[in-house]
Amino acid sequence: MRDPLTLPPDWQQRLLATRARLRERTPLVHCLTNQVTMNFVANVLLAAGASPAMTDHPKEAGELAAAADGVLINLGTPNAASLEAMRRASLAASKARRPWVLDPVGAAALPLRREISLELMAHRPAVVRGNASEILSLVDSDARGRGVDTRHDASDAATAAPHLLDRTSGVAISGKIDRLVGIHDNADPVLVSIEGGSAWQPRVTGTGCALGALIAAYLAVADSTLDAMIAAHAHAAAAAERAEQEAKGPGSFAVAWLDALDSADLTAFFETRVARHELA
Amino acid sequence: MRDPLTLPPDWQQRLLATRARLRERTPLVHCLTNQVTMNFVANVLLAAGASPAMTDHPKEAGELAAAADGVLINLGTPNAASLEAMRRASLAASKARRPWVLDPVGAAALPLRREISLELMAHRPAVVRGNASEILSLVDSDARGRGVDTRHDASDAATAAPHLLDRTSGVAISGKIDRLVGIHDNADPVLVSIEGGSAWQPRVTGTGCALGALIAAYLAVADSTLDAMIAAHAHAAAAAERAEQEAKGPGSFAVAWLDALDSADLTAFFETRVARHELA
Amino acid sequence: MRDPLTLPPDWQQRLLATRARLRERTPLVHCLTNQVTMNFVANVLLAAGASPAMTDHPKEAGELAAAADGVLINLGTPNAASLEAMRRASLAASKARRPWVLDPVGAAALPLRREISLELMAHRPAVVRGNASEILSLVDSDARGRGVDTRHDASDAATAAPHLLDRTSGVAISGKIDRLVGIHDNADPVLVSIEGGSAWQPRVTGTGCALGALIAAYLAVADSTLDAMIAAHAHAAAAAERAEQEAKGPGSFAVAWLDALDSADLTAFFETRVARHELA
Repeated sequence: MRDPLTLPPDWQQRLLATRARLRERTPLVHCLTNQVTMNFVANVLLAAGASPAMTDHPKEAGELAAAADGVLINLGTPNAASLEAMRRASLAASKARRPWVLDPVGAAALPLRREISLELMAHRPAVVRGNASEILSLVDSDARGRGVDTRHDASDAATAAPHLLDRTSGVAISGKIDRLVGIHDNADPVLVSIEGGSAWQPRVTGTGCALGALIAAYLAVADSTLDAMIAAHAHAAAAAERAEQEAKGPGSFAVAWLDALDSADLTAFFETRVARHELA
Repeated sequence: MRDPLTLPPDWQQRLLATRARLRERTPLVHCLTNQVTMNFVANVLLAAGASPAMTDHPKEAGELAAAADGVLINLGTPNAASLEAMRRASLAASKARRPWVLDPVGAAALPLRREISLELMAHRPAVVRGNASEILSLVDSDARGRGVDTRHDASDAATAAPHLLDRTSGVAISGKIDRLVGIHDNADPVLVSIEGGSAWQPRVTGTGCALGALIAAYLAVADSTLDAMIAAHAHAAAAAERAEQEAKGPGSFAVAWLDALDSADLTAFFETRVARHELA
Repeated sequence: MRDPLTLPPDWQQRLLATRARLRERTPLVHCLTNQVTMNFVANVLLAAGASPAMTDHPKEAGELAAAADGVLINLGTPNAASLEAMRRASLAASKARRPWVLDPVGAAALPLRREISLELMAHRPAVVRGNASEILSLVDSDARGRGVDTRHDASDAATAAPHLLDRTSGVAISGKIDRLVGIHDNADPVLVSIEGGSAWQPRVTGTGCALGALIAAYLAVADSTLDAMIAAHAHAAAAAERAEQEAKGPGSFAVAWLDALDSADLTAFFETRVARHELA
């Protein structure tokens, strides 16, 4: 990674307009996501200004994905029926030119997840979002994690991410510093890093899943895949910082985060916490 | 709709007694509901004073429905097994003369939901609860919605609702003004409207589903189907108004709503926010 | 039950060290649990200092159970696939010598649950946790409950619990007074009682399920099965007492309980609320 650059002022303005557009348009986001965090993910979308739909019946998933403004596919708790629904939804989204996000939860630790992730990527997700181990496992089958946590560094995953850009337009690697690799305005791929958020985030289940859902929502209103990834991560991190000021522990943090997703102002965050870099 | 009438004082007293009875008797409410909001719905029932059971195994659903004091069937996220459980539970409830509530989530947007709703209505739900588009879709297959939101006006749905009274005793149409069509004391069907609640309610997933569950709980202790619908909607709306005073956003609203469902006093609400009308 | 004994000071110290170890080691707890409370259970584990994994795909459950530090199997909402996953996970845990906890939700009311519980007990759970009716139903098929509530007294269940010790090392009976029967240091089985907690706990869904998950987490770091049961129940009860001071109702209680699970000091609780008894 070369010297960091702060985000150009016109990017800041464009991203603030993207956040405002989310609230105005209330995009319908179809989520095929895990059973553990689906309630929280739906509430995150509502708090941020989007409208969630969570149907995972195989007979309905394709129809709803094609009608939605954005689609999330999260592999947290797959079963036979939901996997079939994911296949149909990703294919229908791809055919209807609806952007969809793949969150390959557990792909680094569990062979079935990696296999499914690689299969679904044939339907060209707009964005793949995961932790460093998950992203690396899609590039290199030797990268292993344990459970759903990461054992790898985000910067290594960012270096490997361009290898995935033949099958997706954006790669989002979540970590203490989020690293986003994608394309804006038909230029070469760039790397954007975001430093922020709260130490309470990994202590609440679903804060990672919520990022995938927010990206799907922003894809419906953003000028580019890269913008959608930046807006989603900045929105989540800025709200987390505000929530931390209210929180007395992980329970009150989660509540305050939902409150802040509704009302947080992202201006200062875009000015100081987001940097654009050239890819090495 | 003719001139609105406020609620007669004896109705107000009767409904306050109904609310007290719910807390005293702690009715067991068997919920076959969607995976997104089942945790929230269970907590709503517990907060209001009822006892939830959420089993959806086909082998158990019939037995539990017949043993419960009230049953909720919500089509939010159906799958093959849960649909079979819904068929058995609604049949068992009907045979054992246990009141059950149908919440036809998505019936306006998704053909499968409408089909299932019409099939289950053969087992004679006590109440059908939905938004205007969902209720209209059961009367007229041309009424379409998008996702789970409504595109129709509640007053149109209220006008159409009596067409469903050959298969159910009550129709509850949720909206900014809730409209309830049902029978009390063997008189002709009447329309009751409820104006109240909070703008935060549609920003928290499951506040609609919770209404269906509360109706099922109140059916176990109310003098009539109409009373159960009024008590449930008034309880939810009065608690929402109190919660709004505490809320800093959708997260803290949901928490405060659960608190207020436990403790809210409905006296003033019945006096000022509920009106009985003759049906046109 | 003979005269109560308070907990010896060396036990108090050992249990405080156990609590500290949980936070240091962040054990991975694989939960095959019910759909209603899985989000809450995951957040409880994170708040207490453990790391949850909730996969229930039959193809993955065995592998993850063998890799985890502790396993929870909760029968709250079984279906065909999750039951197969539970069979494989309990067998894999047993073979890999990973401690696992059985929570036989509904075993007293629903024949299918009792049957499954008895089948899974062949894989030797470290602990069986339930309410009095559920525990009694595993000893005596005539003990019946209704829904998921108990109709029996915890002291009767504690008297019957030693009959289960040929198939498990510990029995935890939750109630107003929790009663734990198990072995420490290869001595004869003893009974430990814990008096504490909050009246709000049964008004929030999942507070019971969370106890099973906390036992599974503590089994990974405790010196004995008995220690794991004591630490889990004391942790939950002490946090509940602190949460009650903040709570305005069941919603804010649940939030404050998560906060307190992170930060509550258990010293005073072990000194005054836990007693060791000889078994009659």
